[in-house]
Amino acid sequence: MSNVGKKTGRERGEEWWQTDIIEMRPGVIRLRGYEIQDLIGRVSFPAMIWLMLRGELPGKEQAALLGIALGAAVDHGPQAPSIAIARMAATCGVGINSAMASAINVLGDVHGGAGEQALAFYGDIAAALDAGVTLADAVASRLDRIFAEEKSYVPGLGHRFHPVDPRAPRLIELTRDFAARGIISGRFADIAEAVEADVTRRKGKKIPLNIDGATAVLYGELGFPPPLTRGLFVLSRSVGILAHAWEQSQQSGRNKGPLPREWLWAYTGTPVRPFPQGDDDSK
Amino acid sequence: MSNVGKKTGRERGEEWWQTDIIEMRPGVIRLRGYEIQDLIGRVSFPAMIWLMLRGELPGKEQAALLGIALGAAVDHGPQAPSIAIARMAATCGVGINSAMASAINVLGDVHGGAGEQALAFYGDIAAALDAGVTLADAVASRLDRIFAEEKSYVPGLGHRFHPVDPRAPRLIELTRDFAARGIISGRFADIAEAVEADVTRRKGKKIPLNIDGATAVLYGELGFPPPLTRGLFVLSRSVGILAHAWEQSQQSGRNKGPLPREWLWAYTGTPVRPFPQGDDDSK
Amino acid sequence: MSNVGKKTGRERGEEWWQTDIIEMRPGVIRLRGYEIQDLIGRVSFPAMIWLMLRGELPGKEQAALLGIALGAAVDHGPQAPSIAIARMAATCGVGINSAMASAINVLGDVHGGAGEQALAFYGDIAAALDAGVTLADAVASRLDRIFAEEKSYVPGLGHRFHPVDPRAPRLIELTRDFAARGIISGRFADIAEAVEADVTRRKGKKIPLNIDGATAVLYGELGFPPPLTRGLFVLSRSVGILAHAWEQSQQSGRNKGPLPREWLWAYTGTPVRPFPQGDDDSK
Amino acid sequence: MSNVGKKTGRERGEEWWQTDIIEMRPGVIRLRGYEIQDLIGRVSFPAMIWLMLRGELPGKEQAALLGIALGAAVDHGPQAPSIAIARMAATCGVGINSAMASAINVLGDVHGGAGEQALAFYGDIAAALDAGVTLADAVASRLDRIFAEEKSYVPGLGHRFHPVDPRAPRLIELTRDFAARGIISGRFADIAEAVEADVTRRKGKKIPLNIDGATAVLYGELGFPPPLTRGLFVLSRSVGILAHAWEQSQQSGRNKGPLPREWLWAYTGTPVRPFPQGDDDSK
Repeated sequence: MSNVGKKTGRERGEEWWQTDIIEMRPGVIRLRGYEIQDLIGRVSFPAMIWLMLRGELPGKEQAALLGIALGAAVDHGPQAPSIAIARMAATCGVGINSAMASAINVLGDVHGGAGEQALAFYGDIAAALDAGVTLADAVASRLDRIFAEEKSYVPGLGHRFHPVDPRAPRLIELTRDFAARGIISGRFADIAEAVEADVTRRKGKKIPLNIDGATAVLYGELGFPPPLTRGLFVLSRSVGILAHAWEQSQQSGRNKGPLPREWLWAYTGTPVRPFPQGDDDSK
Repeated sequence: MSNVGKKTGRERGEEWWQTDIIEMRPGVIRLRGYEIQDLIGRVSFPAMIWLMLRGELPGKEQAALLGIALGAAVDHGPQAPSIAIARMAATCGVGINSAMASAINVLGDVHGGAGEQALAFYGDIAAALDAGVTLADAVASRLDRIFAEEKSYVPGLGHRFHPVDPRAPRLIELTRDFAARGIISGRFADIAEAVEADVTRRKGKKIPLNIDGATAVLYGELGFPPPLTRGLFVLSRSVGILAHAWEQSQQSGRNKGPLPREWLWAYTGTPVRPFPQGDDDSK
Repeated sequence: MSNVGKKTGRERGEEWWQTDIIEMRPGVIRLRGYEIQDLIGRVSFPAMIWLMLRGELPGKEQAALLGIALGAAVDHGPQAPSIAIARMAATCGVGINSAMASAINVLGDVHGGAGEQALAFYGDIAAALDAGVTLADAVASRLDRIFAEEKSYVPGLGHRFHPVDPRAPRLIELTRDFAARGIISGRFADIAEAVEADVTRRKGKKIPLNIDGATAVLYGELGFPPPLTRGLFVLSRSVGILAHAWEQSQQSGRNKGPLPREWLWAYTGTPVRPFPQGDDDSK
Repeated sequence: MSNVGKKTGRERGEEWWQTDIIEMRPGVIRLRGYEIQDLIGRVSFPAMIWLMLRGELPGKEQAALLGIALGAAVDHGPQAPSIAIARMAATCGVGINSAMASAINVLGDVHGGAGEQALAFYGDIAAALDAGVTLADAVASRLDRIFAEEKSYVPGLGHRFHPVDPRAPRLIELTRDFAARGIISGRFADIAEAVEADVTRRKGKKIPLNIDGATAVLYGELGFPPPLTRGLFVLSRSVGILAHAWEQSQQSGRNKGPLPREWLWAYTGTPVRPFPQGDDDSK
């Protein structure tokens, strides 16, 4: 970059768009240094996702675990805003890509960010472990901080609908299995379970691990940074979004609203009033 | 463009992005040839919209009529997918711009395109008038074509909810008023009323002009091409979208679904079944 | 809400969607209590925006000042990501609504949030004034806090491109004019100018008010809360986004990229390497 | 549905949202009839995608081929509007979900629809085969129709950048391999190669199969309907979109425009002109 002044305009333009991800020339496409034709048919789809995001190929079992996490969160039904929006959009005369975009767009801090928050929370505890603190002390200290902040919930625990989310124990079971086979360490599963146990002691009742906590465990074991896991959740939920948009588009509705067509909404505002005469712009 | 080979890379790059709309240099911003500081405070917001889209300043009364059309379609309540999506998105932890984007995105051919279709339809009749056909014949001939195509509806007429949409007669009244004052010709109002009358004769009952037909009349009178009127509808409905997103964001909900929280949806698919053992990937 | 158990399901559904903004029945549309037909033709487009967002009609001059703020920020050219995205999207085979949505969506904290931040900053100073602090002290104290936080910039001041943004002095001039006529107080203009002056003293050079600071002054004078001004910016910039999407769609390009078609990007990643044999999934 | 009048409001509301995809009760999540915990860890991610979209589990090899198609199209670099938009959006202060949404949104008829068009084209030929026409005749007849329509291109053939797209021959090689193993029929590969050969004869030069044609072959072999393959392309390209948005977000840019920061665009509109005095609204 030191000789900017000597670069041609084309070089300057081409440097404006820099990437470590893809190299291309006529007849050549390379992803992370691999010829695309060497990758096609040799890596699974989750392995391709891993390579694109992290720059190196995963082991086959790592890729399998990533695929498990991606498969677990594909759908939570039309009461989820993302799924409802996909279905409504599909009746409005836009392409399936646009129906998906409107839906994916709402996977924000509240709808899509719980796993990211859980992983960041577990990561704080992992950092304390690295510094030599015991698991019990690391968990207790981090929870003390949460309750001191008067947060109403602990990331990764509890669900407003499911007493026990059926995905969570299955994901932890698989994590333990992969750890037993030496593919991952199992450390994040330890952390999540210790958090669950400590909160049970404090509250006097069990608030079980939810899907966000369980996928955070998997992503933590695999070494993904928290903000990137929101992107992984988008890839996962996109599957359900597509399935629902597609199903809706096969039906005949137009401009599908949230409630049955002949229902309205409750108006709670100012009662009807006359237009103030003095404000009339039309004179 | 003949001397491409002699252009510098920077010139080539700068030509890649060409526009008639805005010229800029440090300290200078010009829109359609006018210094921005000469426009600010001298043109109304609708006049600025007109200038940006059409390249020339409108007359003051033309701008007023554009403002009337833009103001008329700002909202149709939360049963409209666009408004429901704006409200749901606002509870998902995204910025107000993203809540608006998810909503605006669904103003597609079905949700946002009716006015465009009505104006194209009126434009066909206007073209016949230009060719010397009488109004009655031009309308009848165009309607014959619609009914021959077995379309189920005539663009701009009828509403699934309102027996008479209160916006439509008021907009036509204003169009007549502006025409009487010589600002517009009134031709599209004539066309729309002739269509309404002919359809009444054919059907034996009146299917009144709706908001899409009425705004198509205004946009036609003002000379906007049909596809651009979808963009104008987006500008108009964006106001309601913003108002609803904002109102919702002032409340406390999180991940607002389409139905009351404790309701679900009807599952109509395959009854519960065991996982086929032979397909187990995990072995 | 106390008798939820006695409500019918339909009532519960209709209450799930509550709003103070719009009331509807067949043949009736009311916005904020006014019949829509009473508003159409009597209020300007900015007055309609005000009514929708704030619940009451503005004075005519207040609406005019809102229109001025909305008109000032419509465009900043194709180097702005929002405008470039609108143009690129318009070449990809999506509707004009979707081209607009992709563009509006990026008016986030960085691209669309500077005015909001400037208004929040001025609001802190206004609160100090309300508490009896002098303007000079309130400004100095707030700036002390900014520089203590080692923020690299003061909201509303300076522009990477324009030595003086031509919009800003014109908007302040108009604010002073409206204040002289008693429509607004002029207090936010005082605050912005005091901030500019204090920073000039601290830095030894003038960093002039930019468009975000200037529109924040107008919105502050008119009483809009900071987060809502991001929405107003979206309404404003949507005009330029539409104009550029429309202009682009009149041309013939397909899949317009950011650089001239025959240019590429700089690849800065891992050099080409063979696919590791042991990782081959295809065997 | 015959006894609508006897249904409770809650039943009516829950029926408004109907789906064959997901069934849920507290503690229970079923996808297409399978308990979610039975699927997790037993099906690959592509198999989950297949199940969600088509209602039944694929064979393991079918899922593998779907994964191959999904992996092949993840990225085509920052000259693709989708990738450039993802990177620009990532610098604007929005969440990674919103950066992805703005990008996915532009995978419309032009940017994302080529594979869908190729598959529909191949499907026409397959229908002729089903009716007993020979492959050569079916292809010739369909191409005659294309050239009679004076379309400038044949779906699935040719690339503006790659003389031979390295992905296409590799995908066809794999298709042949899967067909040899009896997993698919190979019929769509036959069709695509016959089209390529016929066009070569007509044009006197080879216009090779491109990525859209090659993935259309795979999706056709697997029995996906054309419009759904656009959705599959969205799932695939989302990976590259996420990778680029993530890479960009790790860098420090703000409001990244399409060209180097100090470059502008070419203004090609009306030269600077004075504001017409008579149009001044401010008096």
